[in-house]
Amino acid sequence: MPNEAKPYDFVIIGGGPAGVTAATELGDQGKTVALVDGHRDLGGAGVNTGTIPSKTLRETALALSGLRSRDLYGVDLSVRREVTVNDFLGHEMHVREAFNKAIFSRLEERHADIYVGNAAFIDPHTVRVSPVPGGPQEEVLLRGENFLLATGSSPNRPALFPFDQGDVYDSDSVLDLHRIPKTMAVIGAGVIGSEYACTFAALGARVHVIDGHESLLPFIDPELSQALIKAMEKNGITFHWKQKVQKCVVEETGVVTLTFSDGPPLTVESVLVAAGRKSNSEKLNLAAAGVKTDERGTVLVDDAYRTNVPHISAAGDIIGYPALASTSMAQGRLAVRHALGVQDPALAPVLPSGIYTIPEISVAGESEASLQKKNIPYVVGRARYEDNARGRIIGDTDGFLKLVFRKEDMMLLGVHVIGEQSTEIVHIGLVGILGGAKAELFVDICFNIPTLSMLYKAAALDAIHNAAH
Amino acid sequence: MPNEAKPYDFVIIGGGPAGVTAATELGDQGKTVALVDGHRDLGGAGVNTGTIPSKTLRETALALSGLRSRDLYGVDLSVRREVTVNDFLGHEMHVREAFNKAIFSRLEERHADIYVGNAAFIDPHTVRVSPVPGGPQEEVLLRGENFLLATGSSPNRPALFPFDQGDVYDSDSVLDLHRIPKTMAVIGAGVIGSEYACTFAALGARVHVIDGHESLLPFIDPELSQALIKAMEKNGITFHWKQKVQKCVVEETGVVTLTFSDGPPLTVESVLVAAGRKSNSEKLNLAAAGVKTDERGTVLVDDAYRTNVPHISAAGDIIGYPALASTSMAQGRLAVRHALGVQDPALAPVLPSGIYTIPEISVAGESEASLQKKNIPYVVGRARYEDNARGRIIGDTDGFLKLVFRKEDMMLLGVHVIGEQSTEIVHIGLVGILGGAKAELFVDICFNIPTLSMLYKAAALDAIHNAAH
Repeated sequence: MPNEAKPYDFVIIGGGPAGVTAATELGDQGKTVALVDGHRDLGGAGVNTGTIPSKTLRETALALSGLRSRDLYGVDLSVRREVTVNDFLGHEMHVREAFNKAIFSRLEERHADIYVGNAAFIDPHTVRVSPVPGGPQEEVLLRGENFLLATGSSPNRPALFPFDQGDVYDSDSVLDLHRIPKTMAVIGAGVIGSEYACTFAALGARVHVIDGHESLLPFIDPELSQALIKAMEKNGITFHWKQKVQKCVVEETGVVTLTFSDGPPLTVESVLVAAGRKSNSEKLNLAAAGVKTDERGTVLVDDAYRTNVPHISAAGDIIGYPALASTSMAQGRLAVRHALGVQDPALAPVLPSGIYTIPEISVAGESEASLQKKNIPYVVGRARYEDNARGRIIGDTDGFLKLVFRKEDMMLLGVHVIGEQSTEIVHIGLVGILGGAKAELFVDICFNIPTLSMLYKAAALDAIHNAAH
Repeated sequence: MPNEAKPYDFVIIGGGPAGVTAATELGDQGKTVALVDGHRDLGGAGVNTGTIPSKTLRETALALSGLRSRDLYGVDLSVRREVTVNDFLGHEMHVREAFNKAIFSRLEERHADIYVGNAAFIDPHTVRVSPVPGGPQEEVLLRGENFLLATGSSPNRPALFPFDQGDVYDSDSVLDLHRIPKTMAVIGAGVIGSEYACTFAALGARVHVIDGHESLLPFIDPELSQALIKAMEKNGITFHWKQKVQKCVVEETGVVTLTFSDGPPLTVESVLVAAGRKSNSEKLNLAAAGVKTDERGTVLVDDAYRTNVPHISAAGDIIGYPALASTSMAQGRLAVRHALGVQDPALAPVLPSGIYTIPEISVAGESEASLQKKNIPYVVGRARYEDNARGRIIGDTDGFLKLVFRKEDMMLLGVHVIGEQSTEIVHIGLVGILGGAKAELFVDICFNIPTLSMLYKAAALDAIHNAAH
């Protein structure tokens, strides 16, 4: 028999970016908090299987491959031939452990109680936490005045792929690979598939990207996605467009053969299936709380991140798009502030996307396409890394910045960058958009030289020039 | 006999960042322009002897030394032992040539006439361009409706250093070194001395920094300069504070012995004297035009960059502080716009400084010290690279961001960063300062994860926390 339910102001289910940020905010507001997670290592997909590990691997790949320094220095910095699995994964483990530790101490400082186990509702105010391997082996009942659902998402695993055999991975299990394959097929040209394709190519794998459509990252400005395709091909990646995998067979020798709707089969050492992710809502027994989801399990919320049951909120991947660590953190914080009635402006209405392909891409705000749809006349300004002092120094001659201004008053509406550090420098434009900056501001600002940031001045000048002609 | 004076709307003397930017602007405004420079390679100190070459060398040093990737990847990426002079200088030459070419084509597009030679006034509206080696060997007279003086600055060469002997360099001639010295003394702990000290230490030289005072970069927030001293010492640099060099002797063996006012002498392979710079005004025969300078040759200008002679303006190092490529470019553009009477807001009133030490430092806006002096109550917020996901991934555990807000309304007034990419991410805060951003904005913004930019959110939260306690 479990003990009586322990009462808390807030019970948070899920210890990823949304849950941990929410717990921190609640601790700062003096509330009692229970945080339940199925893993002893908190951090969720953000720290353990997604954002941080994949970006750490990417950074390691860039350093080990010599790709970052290219052939500019007269010395081949590539140490590819010497790369071992430990080099590849050692740093990633190191970063991950540091994060796990940091999260624990952050929650400890705020006196949040951490429960390791699977939470499921037994009534709208009570969850049962059942034991998981590696956690305490007794059930606990928790009673919450309020709840936050933040259990994230998991990779889809289409039935035709034999994930239990050989080297067939989803985007979580790929982190368990024990060697860098010579050849790899990546199924799906979305964000996760594209990112891993670039990382493994940088590590020396011959990578094939297979996608049922004919566009890479279709939500990105076509100028950028075309430039990315070119750069990926330059790095040795082969695209197989409009191909559906019909069969995936692990041969006795260990290699994997893919058969397509069209064209010859492909044999590779490893397969990574990046076929989207689904909300982790099915184990929560949401029916007992009366919380509604859509048919794919995505929890439905309003603008204040409340579900249809007012004392139960949800944030992060479990509520669907955009399912980024950055937005999940913001949602987690805002969800609990709304629940507590703390006055707060809404989540800053312009969300940047950072895509850690090689080269990386980042965008914020409006695109040409979105403005055409809204019938808002606009002016574009461009600047190339090649014409920028820092771009020259680091040898990135393919990158570019594209700014989109409202024609009427040259107000900055959109920022689109492909190239090194694009996920950092996009924020200069983001702060400008949020502050109502116009093209003239970026012309008048003194930027440090030599910096990529200076691209903003060049692109703003280009836009002013284009507006006049 | 020279031909009759050729008439131009504008004669620009000096083809560095100020002069070239001014010529570009004038071309865009449809004016006729003559640009005179003493070197066939345009770009001035910005491209040829200062900003770009020193930063290119720094980037090369970082790549070759393995300092950037540190020991995180389980593989020693250092190739220091194999570095040859060509590795070190080859890329720098490459970048420099690309810039020279870009400048020429930019001026060509705008139909600016380029004259290679030394310009000197013969009356307020006429200069004589005299031949220099490598240029055309006949004199030319140029008549300008308006003039821009932009001949830059040169290193001071204190008499006690034998610059004509052995390996004793100033900050221009150091680029001619033909090998990486094992030991080096840098005289002067200002920006240029500190930057080169870090670059040569990264390349494996044992570096001594000698300064008459006891502070590194005294205009920087002491928290940052203290952190920089620690980092430089960690990279093997020794500081000799409150030391004046009394004698500098090149021995027969080629080594250089420095004798100090105090303490034992120091013997090194090379000496770099970084003892400030002085305006290049003496050859212009400014007396013939009636233009006033101060006793050190710095040309005096008003807020519109006009000298005491209304049709003659000046911009860049020749007018003194801050003498950065970034500000020179802005000044050059504004000077000619003022001269043409084109309406323009003043130079954005907050100028960032970027200091390319290792680690790099960048600041913009107010400091604690400047606010204390103005009696403005303030709140500080800090965030460490070590607690930031990107900082962890790249292994920069020493960097930090310090934001200074006005206490009254939490408006951002100052940004201070030390660490990788600080010269880029400072601009996020700079755009915020110029747009009147408050702490809450940086809390509400979604930043890409993992980025260093996210430090702004952490520092803003810290400031809000500090304001409340």
